Order: sequence, then structure tokens, then C-alpha cells
Amino acid sequence: MTRPCHDTPWKNRFAARTQRMTSSIIRELLKLTEQHDIISFAGGLPAPETFPVTEMEVAAQRVLEQHGAAALQYSPTEGYRPLRELVARHMRRYGIKVTPDHVLITTGSQQALDLIGKLLINPGDRILTEEPTYLGALQAFTSYQAEYVTVPIDDDGLQIDRLEEALRVGPKFLYILPNFQNPSGVTLSLERRRRLVELANTYGTPIVEDDPYGQLRYEGEHLPPLVKLDAEFHRSSKGENGFTGNVLYLSTLSKTLAPGLRVGWIVAPQEEISRLVQMKQGADLHTSTFTQVLAYETARGGFLDRHVRDIRKVYGERRGAMLEALERHFPPQVHWTRPQGGLFLWVRLPRGFDAAQLLEQALQEKVAFVPGTSFFPAGGGEETLRLNFSYCTPKVIEEGIRRLGLVVKRFLGANR
Amino acid sequence: MTRPCHDTPWKNRFAARTQRMTSSIIRELLKLTEQHDIISFAGGLPAPETFPVTEMEVAAQRVLEQHGAAALQYSPTEGYRPLRELVARHMRRYGIKVTPDHVLITTGSQQALDLIGKLLINPGDRILTEEPTYLGALQAFTSYQAEYVTVPIDDDGLQIDRLEEALRVGPKFLYILPNFQNPSGVTLSLERRRRLVELANTYGTPIVEDDPYGQLRYEGEHLPPLVKLDAEFHRSSKGENGFTGNVLYLSTLSKTLAPGLRVGWIVAPQEEISRLVQMKQGADLHTSTFTQVLAYETARGGFLDRHVRDIRKVYGERRGAMLEALERHFPPQVHWTRPQGGLFLWVRLPRGFDAAQLLEQALQEKVAFVPGTSFFPAGGGEETLRLNFSYCTPKVIEEGIRRLGLVVKRFLGANR
Repeated sequence: MTRPCHDTPWKNRFAARTQRMTSSIIRELLKLTEQHDIISFAGGLPAPETFPVTEMEVAAQRVLEQHGAAALQYSPTEGYRPLRELVARHMRRYGIKVTPDHVLITTGSQQALDLIGKLLINPGDRILTEEPTYLGALQAFTSYQAEYVTVPIDDDGLQIDRLEEALRVGPKFLYILPNFQNPSGVTLSLERRRRLVELANTYGTPIVEDDPYGQLRYEGEHLPPLVKLDAEFHRSSKGENGFTGNVLYLSTLSKTLAPGLRVGWIVAPQEEISRLVQMKQGADLHTSTFTQVLAYETARGGFLDRHVRDIRKVYGERRGAMLEALERHFPPQVHWTRPQGGLFLWVRLPRGFDAAQLLEQALQEKVAFVPGTSFFPAGGGEETLRLNFSYCTPKVIEEGIRRLGLVVKRFLGANR
Repeated sequence: MTRPCHDTPWKNRFAARTQRMTSSIIRELLKLTEQHDIISFAGGLPAPETFPVTEMEVAAQRVLEQHGAAALQYSPTEGYRPLRELVARHMRRYGIKVTPDHVLITTGSQQALDLIGKLLINPGDRILTEEPTYLGALQAFTSYQAEYVTVPIDDDGLQIDRLEEALRVGPKFLYILPNFQNPSGVTLSLERRRRLVELANTYGTPIVEDDPYGQLRYEGEHLPPLVKLDAEFHRSSKGENGFTGNVLYLSTLSKTLAPGLRVGWIVAPQEEISRLVQMKQGADLHTSTFTQVLAYETARGGFLDRHVRDIRKVYGERRGAMLEALERHFPPQVHWTRPQGGLFLWVRLPRGFDAAQLLEQALQEKVAFVPGTSFFPAGGGEETLRLNFSYCTPKVIEEGIRRLGLVVKRFLGANR
């Protein structure tokens, strides 16, 4: 008699930390949308036509001719030194005294979130996040059995007058995306940034600043990152010199060069970097030597800056196309954010309507988005949804939003 | 007044799991040996002159010309499908019914160990390992607060008559490197393999089979991997069909193509693969698309097999050179293993001598190795040391072992 396939010793052996983990709805959705003739605003994909394929071909050739075997060998856990220097130089533009020793190269920003979880989270620790917040961070932190305390956002980012109450709960750290937040697209105002740094220092709560989109601003002035404001705070209030403080700062080449390289980084004081290096040793030894050298050889000599200017132009147009299409096709009782940068905007249906139900109908009209609930660590958000504007061309955006507008009008009418 | 740099909120915030983690002695040593004019038998580095630099140059060109942006974009967590197919085909050579759905591509084998720890280990769980065993596995598992129960090895691998006692303790899983084990170089005999699979199934203990070196055999017959013997056991005793069972099998391209790519894999029944995929989503989203496609484009069409034959020849000579040099230069009271493959051999000084002290003297003579204690999860092994024979040429090996032989003779004489 044949026994069932999974009568194996694995059963009931999975660790407690896996109980609350579910597969990312977004990634499952992405699979679905890849298979069909669908206009997808669901992913967070950069536009592939912006990838510098030719430049990377030249760089790959140079890497293998000049570095040869060294680019294919094991390399230090901390990362490829010239790439760490490039990141440090970039940070010094903001007036922060960062050296290469303050930089750890990670296998994409996602690994940075995982390493931080591994370093800091004990089971049951509460993490303070915006509501909504980045799903990938929730996945990383939840795998270390984090709990959450949340502060809602408005058009100026995290509602600062509700922060102190949350800090009093004693969270292990505060996780925040100040620029063009994923999923909402909103940006934390300068005044709130200052107040946030002050409050976090008062309560002794470390800040994890996630900034994958900071360079992709299409209007308005660049605002100083929290890591800079915090370093200034430490300098003026405590007389500290060099790069110290209360912030772990994360960024990546995924949105400015190519996500398929999996190259991100953490900027932090040196003691925290060496502890994160230990975590990374056990996690994957080091990030691919070859992709690090390739990224550096492509980015160096000013290419990355020029390239980012080109991307800004492309994405700025797409954001404009989506905002115009929304004005044209969406009914007045629906609200959405007007991001100054990044890849996403955030739509709010009237209270009582469910974006997950809307998605089912939208998929029938061959248009996709992500329902907002996955971004709420403590539940809620049923009436919200996230739209990506970086992946589709303006023409496709217009058509997609037209279709979605029809679905929304029908949906709101039928459920009135 | 200037306050000390690290009066920061990070202090005392590190998770309990980090308490027992120390930086890998091997990696710290490697840094030291890189900086000096030292003959190093310390690392586990493949010989860079075996890396197929030219073939990869051609492949990189082809990847970017034919796949273009797709090779630089986000990709599925499970891995690049053609590479998963290549791995599945390779496994089917052993007569195991593996399909691409049974394969998860990881960011090197080290990530496989980390994901397995994340999936299976609750704090305090005991893991059964050989003694000595691979340090990187201990690092990965210890970061999930594993404890260890160990079984010593002899020249035929894990001492099978002591296994049952260890299984009775109720370990979460058994971690083993059956082929040319790191650090000892010994290989588990066929008879012991059969008995081990039987016992593990009797006690319901899953097996994690780590096989980075399996293809690098320089003498003797290839032995069936545990995953095959286990699948046969399940087929004959339980009538199961397809690929099921009790083993997670790990391997990598690090020793057969290039470690700097960071491409490894886990082969497992499908339910375990989908749970590991969830772990990987939170850990780094996916392994670099570019290195996966590049690895596939380099390996395919029979190149990898031809290349492995070349590597075997180079490393086989180096192993021979080291064994001959040891005969020539080492005193008779020192013992060492005679590996049939892999990268390492294992030296045992007479009882009471300490290899860490020997290393200090060896470094003065500009020759390095790794003291054995780091490979013992439960302490011990002071009189042992690991020598790598893949990295240095035969001539350098002869000179290094000559120097080391002098140091050893002096050391044993002085400490008599």
C-alpha cells in the first residue's frame, strides 16, 4: 500500500518562528501576473529599459580581463573595498563623516533587514513601524518572532504627534522609510524628521532608516536623511566627533542600477558594523564578488549619477502619467497620494470597501495591483491599495488606469 | 566634555542569539595571511588558476546580449529555472527522481545552512554533528541558538557504532558531510552510509547532507549519496514513489566553477522546498539573477563536466604533493589522514600538544594552517590541525610542509 508522500520526519519539526510566516502575497501575485496578458501595477519592478545593459557588458569584460580570477574568488565578508569607498563618498555628500569601515555590503537591501533582525530581535520584541510599512521588512523581522507597535501616516509621513506614545511602549527599534515610502509614496517632512530624531534619542530607541528610493526624487528639494540629523544631534548635544549615533542606514543599487545584482548596504557606527559582519558570515559568507566588482566598475567615474538623472526623467514622466490618468478616470470619492519620488502611490477607497474584492474584478479586466492589507502589521487597511508607476510606459499606464477606473466605478456603485 | 563613542542606544540591545557567536577564527586568520608573505594552508580557497575566466567572459557577453535586461531584473525566489533543471539532471545521474521543483538555488551553500537553521532550529534544539565538523555550519546553526550532540569520526567517517546512542538524545536533525569531510578529509564508507540511513529513519531523525566536494574525487569509486540511499529505503520499505524522504541535500558551484559567484542549492521534497523558499524570501528575495544565468551559461553543454575533470587532475597532484611532503618532513609520532578527494587533510599531534601554540611558531616561519579546536562544537581537538592542499602549487606545498615539519619537530622536541 502506498503511504502519503509527506509522512516524513520533517513533519512537526519546523521551528516556532515559522508559524506566523506566510508566503508574500505580492510575490505570489507577481507570478500570476507574469503568466497572463495583464497590465500590472502590482510589482515593485524597476523599468528594465532603464538598465544600462551595454555599459555592463563593457564593465563585465573589463572585470574579467583586469581582475580575472580575483573577481571569481571568495572575498571579505565586509564587501569589496572600492565599492565600500564609493558608498562612503556618497554619504559624505550629505555631510556625514562616513568611512569605508562604516559600510557593510549586503546581498540586496533585503539581506540588510534580515541581518538587523538577526542581530537585534529576541522573540516577542516589539518593533515600531509606520502603518502601512514595507512588507519585506515585516517578513524579515517576523522570521525572528517580532511583534509590532505602529504609528499611522498622513501626507507628511509618520504622524509625529503619535510617536511618543508608541516609544513609551519600549520598542527594540524604530523602522522607517522617510523618502517616498513603500507602499504609500509619502515623504516625512523636515520638521518631523528633526522631531523624530530628538524623540528617538530621548527614549534611547535606535532607528533603522531604509532609503532605497532617496535618489529618485522628481519634484521638490532633497531632505536630509535621519542619519545626518542624528549625527548632528550627537555632535551638538554630546560633543561626539566622527560618525556615531543612533541610526542604521540602508540603501541599495536595486533601484538605481539593477536589482538582479543583489547589491545593497548598511551604513552604521563601526562596532555595529562588526557585529553585523558576524551575522553575515553565517548567512552567506559574503555577497557575490563578481556582482560587487561589476557594480563598482559600472557605477564609477560619475556614471551612476548620470544614470540616476536619466531614470528620474523616465519615472517622473510615468508618475505624471499615472496622476493625470487617475484624475481622468477615477471617481471623486477615491483618494490617492501624490508622491514626490519613488515607485509607488497609494489609493484609499471609501470606508467599507474591500480592495481584495476589487482585485478579483480588476484581474478579470486584465489589470493588477496590490491590496493594502499586507502592509499593515497589526491588521486593517482593507480599503487601501498600492499602485506601482515605474514599470509600465505612460501609454500602458493610461490604459491600465482607464480599465481600473471602470472597475472601481462599477465596484463602488454595486456596493453602495 | 567628549563622551565615549559607544555610549549609544545600541548597547545591550543585541539579541540573545548573538551571545555565543564569535567571529570565525578562520576568516580572521585568512585576513592575516593575506597581508604577509606567508605560505597558507589555512584557507579553503579553490585554486584561482582553475577558474574558467575566458569561458566566463564569453558567457557574460552572451548573457547580456541574449538575455539583456532580464538577467539584471528581479527573479523568482526559487531560482533560475534552467539552472534548477541542470541541478535536477545532475541528481538524476545518481538514479534519484529529482525534478526542478525539488531544487532551491541559494546564495552559496552557506545560505542553505542558514535557511535550514531558520526553518528547523528552536533555541536549545540539539543538532547531531560529526566531531570535528564544518565550522560554517556551526556558525549558521549557533545563530539560531542550537546546542550540539556529537559523534567522533575515524578513517571511515562517523563512527557508526556510536550513532544510536546520539540519536536517542533526540536531535532535531543530523548534519553530515559524507565525502572528503571538511575539516578531516575522511569519507563515510558505503556500509556506514547504509546503516546511517536505516538508523536515522528508525529514529525519525532528518538528515542534512552537505556535499560541496562530492565531485572532487582523486582515487577510489564514487559512493552513493545518502539522499539516494534514503530514497531507495523509502521506496522499498514504504512503497513511496517519486522523490520523497528524509534528506535535505546541499551542494554548490563554489568548488567546481567559482566561489565568487555565490551559487549553491538545496535538493529536498517539494513541501520542504516551499517552506525554505519562504525563509529565503525574507533573507535576500533571491540569489543574483545575473550570477545564476552566468553560471548556467558557463556550465551548460557539458562544459562543467569537462572542467571538473581538469580540476580533479590539478587537485589530485596537489594532494599527492602534500602527502609525499608530509612523509618526507614530518616526524613519525604525527598522524594524518589520506583523503580520497576534497580540499583538506587533517593532522593529529601526539596527545598533550597544542596546535594553537604550534601556529604561533609556524607564523614566524611564514607558514599557516587552522588549529582544529574551532571544528569541535563541544570542545576538545587541541592536538589537531587542518591543512588545505588545493590552493598552493606542488612546489609551494613542498616548501611549506618542509618549513612546517621543522617547526613541528622543534615543537615536539621542546615540549617533550
